[in-house]
Amino acid sequence: MEKNKATFEKDIIPLRNTIDKIDSKILSLLAQRHAQVEKVVKLKKEHHIPVYHPAREEDLISKLRIQAGKANLDPDFMEDLYRVILRQSRVKQTDQMAHKGVRPGARILIIGGAGEMGRFFTTLFQKSEYDVTILTRQDWNNAKQLCIGIDLVIVSVPIEKTEDIIEQIAPFLESNTILADLTSIKQKPLKKMIECHKGPVIGLHPLFGGTSTSLDKQIIVVTPGRNSQSCQWIVEQFTLWGAIVVEATAKEHDHIMELVQALRHFATFGFGQFLHEKEARIERTLEFSSPIYRLELGMVGRLFAQDASLYSEIIFATKERRQLLRDYIESLNTHLEMLEKNDKQLFIEKFNHISQWFGPFSEQAMRESTFLINKLIERF
Amino acid sequence: MEKNKATFEKDIIPLRNTIDKIDSKILSLLAQRHAQVEKVVKLKKEHHIPVYHPAREEDLISKLRIQAGKANLDPDFMEDLYRVILRQSRVKQTDQMAHKGVRPGARILIIGGAGEMGRFFTTLFQKSEYDVTILTRQDWNNAKQLCIGIDLVIVSVPIEKTEDIIEQIAPFLESNTILADLTSIKQKPLKKMIECHKGPVIGLHPLFGGTSTSLDKQIIVVTPGRNSQSCQWIVEQFTLWGAIVVEATAKEHDHIMELVQALRHFATFGFGQFLHEKEARIERTLEFSSPIYRLELGMVGRLFAQDASLYSEIIFATKERRQLLRDYIESLNTHLEMLEKNDKQLFIEKFNHISQWFGPFSEQAMRESTFLINKLIERF
Repeated sequence: MEKNKATFEKDIIPLRNTIDKIDSKILSLLAQRHAQVEKVVKLKKEHHIPVYHPAREEDLISKLRIQAGKANLDPDFMEDLYRVILRQSRVKQTDQMAHKGVRPGARILIIGGAGEMGRFFTTLFQKSEYDVTILTRQDWNNAKQLCIGIDLVIVSVPIEKTEDIIEQIAPFLESNTILADLTSIKQKPLKKMIECHKGPVIGLHPLFGGTSTSLDKQIIVVTPGRNSQSCQWIVEQFTLWGAIVVEATAKEHDHIMELVQALRHFATFGFGQFLHEKEARIERTLEFSSPIYRLELGMVGRLFAQDASLYSEIIFATKERRQLLRDYIESLNTHLEMLEKNDKQLFIEKFNHISQWFGPFSEQAMRESTFLINKLIERF
Repeated sequence: MEKNKATFEKDIIPLRNTIDKIDSKILSLLAQRHAQVEKVVKLKKEHHIPVYHPAREEDLISKLRIQAGKANLDPDFMEDLYRVILRQSRVKQTDQMAHKGVRPGARILIIGGAGEMGRFFTTLFQKSEYDVTILTRQDWNNAKQLCIGIDLVIVSVPIEKTEDIIEQIAPFLESNTILADLTSIKQKPLKKMIECHKGPVIGLHPLFGGTSTSLDKQIIVVTPGRNSQSCQWIVEQFTLWGAIVVEATAKEHDHIMELVQALRHFATFGFGQFLHEKEARIERTLEFSSPIYRLELGMVGRLFAQDASLYSEIIFATKERRQLLRDYIESLNTHLEMLEKNDKQLFIEKFNHISQWFGPFSEQAMRESTFLINKLIERF
């Protein structure tokens, strides 16, 4: 057996060396590719062409899938690989295009610019040659002064302070200054901005954390307030940075966010709280975990890795939200009897009814989550 | 502007052609790599060496990260890319190694072999040159006959039928036949197998669906019953197929599965039911969704894309499970007052307490889920 192993080691070394050489060549080609992409970016910048070119990407993927088939490689594998390469190329491009300002030189005042989200936008705007000023708690004595000649004021403060800050800053604004906020609820701040300021108003909700490294495919919800025409350049700038802009009324936004944020986070909180109550041994359960459970538990862990007050603001933001969460708990209580009576039949009926209601989304969810599960297996 | 666009098109074509040529070269190198990997597999087969070689993989990744840095490529990008390539290579290898049987020619009887999981294992064992017989509902008249000279009987029937089937088949078994089941609970079936059969007994719980295409990194829990030595070859076979085998007592297994399966699935069910109750507009909410919400909603949709009775069996499997789920609902009820009273402070206290309890897992969860979120953005 020892001799056998020695033979194996001897035989495998040249094969591994060949593989290492191939890998070096691939790496060098990737570097060449990267250099070409930089030239494309330069050209796009000169001609004001947006980075993301879905048709070109899909065309490229289709061609490579066909070539892969001919070369006896799995087309799905080839597609997976190139999704990674294209994303990298897109992020690089977006990163460089970010320097491109729709209104370079425009003057922006970010209130709360020292916070995470404030810093994120400060950096982005500055890269694109905007003239950015930050107003922190210490600067309120100068607030009036700081507002002179400003084109856009962005209020980026915690949710519970937003309305107060709007009231305080509005009197200093010139009539053509755009007033915007970044709060995760939109009805109240928007109403307050329209009340206190006579100029253009726009509500913004970036659906990502301030620790993101790029706007590539990130979503920003825009809720128009007053004089949308004057605010249009902001939307164009976000798009040029690679973001996806979704427009909605403040009411629709808040209603959807009740579910997307408050309910989801609260449910996750409740789940984590119960695991703690039962003193679940997380590490050991992970050894027994299919990737999907690992992923789901990961979502719980992720919540508790973040800031408690951030979530308390989201969950307790409005009376409507708190009512929705109470409805949720009440809804769960309706299942108690089914569990007590061991009523499998009722469960199956409920389940099938909900399945029908979900309709084609279930199939899509299955496809997407299967893809992710494979990614998870690949990595960990 | 039109002229400008024409110039752009003229200038970009040669760049795109160069990129296409580079891509073709990369593809051809990947095909060469693939051919080398096949030689490695052949060698491993000859020398009975397992496919997965974590040290070699990590070493390769480390080297490539360093090379990437030198070539002005992002090391994380390079690692992402090679995780895809290495997984593909591993799946290919596992696929081919699967032909390798630890005990080729051994006779296996799979009860319920026409079901999804039964078919999955039938295919795997057959590829590895085992002699597999299937016993379906129609074959019970021949059951005694079919059990003659069988080395391993695997009971792969729905959870609620498992104990009955064990009782029915056990009298026909020879004393050296191994009796195994694949049920997702283990205490009761294992007890029943030990009672009814005098020979070797082993409980198995594959933590994946029968629609999986490979055992690569899939988890199988093994709960020893009687005469583990005789059952060892089964564990070895699973490992050779690329699975990760986790050993536990039936009691520990069931306790952990209460959380990992029953609780998690029930919580997801309850969430879906509430979305339905509130008539949430799924499609529209997705437009407003950060990748993480998309992922979480995907988990809900995924559940409802599957078979109701499968989940009812998991959720209602035992009295203990039903009690746990009632405890879960009761635990949520304790938050009602906090919501009514708008008690943010209490929420923050609870939150921080749970965060501490999660400890380092939160940080790991954050890292893993961030990776997946990026994958999700990349793809969809």
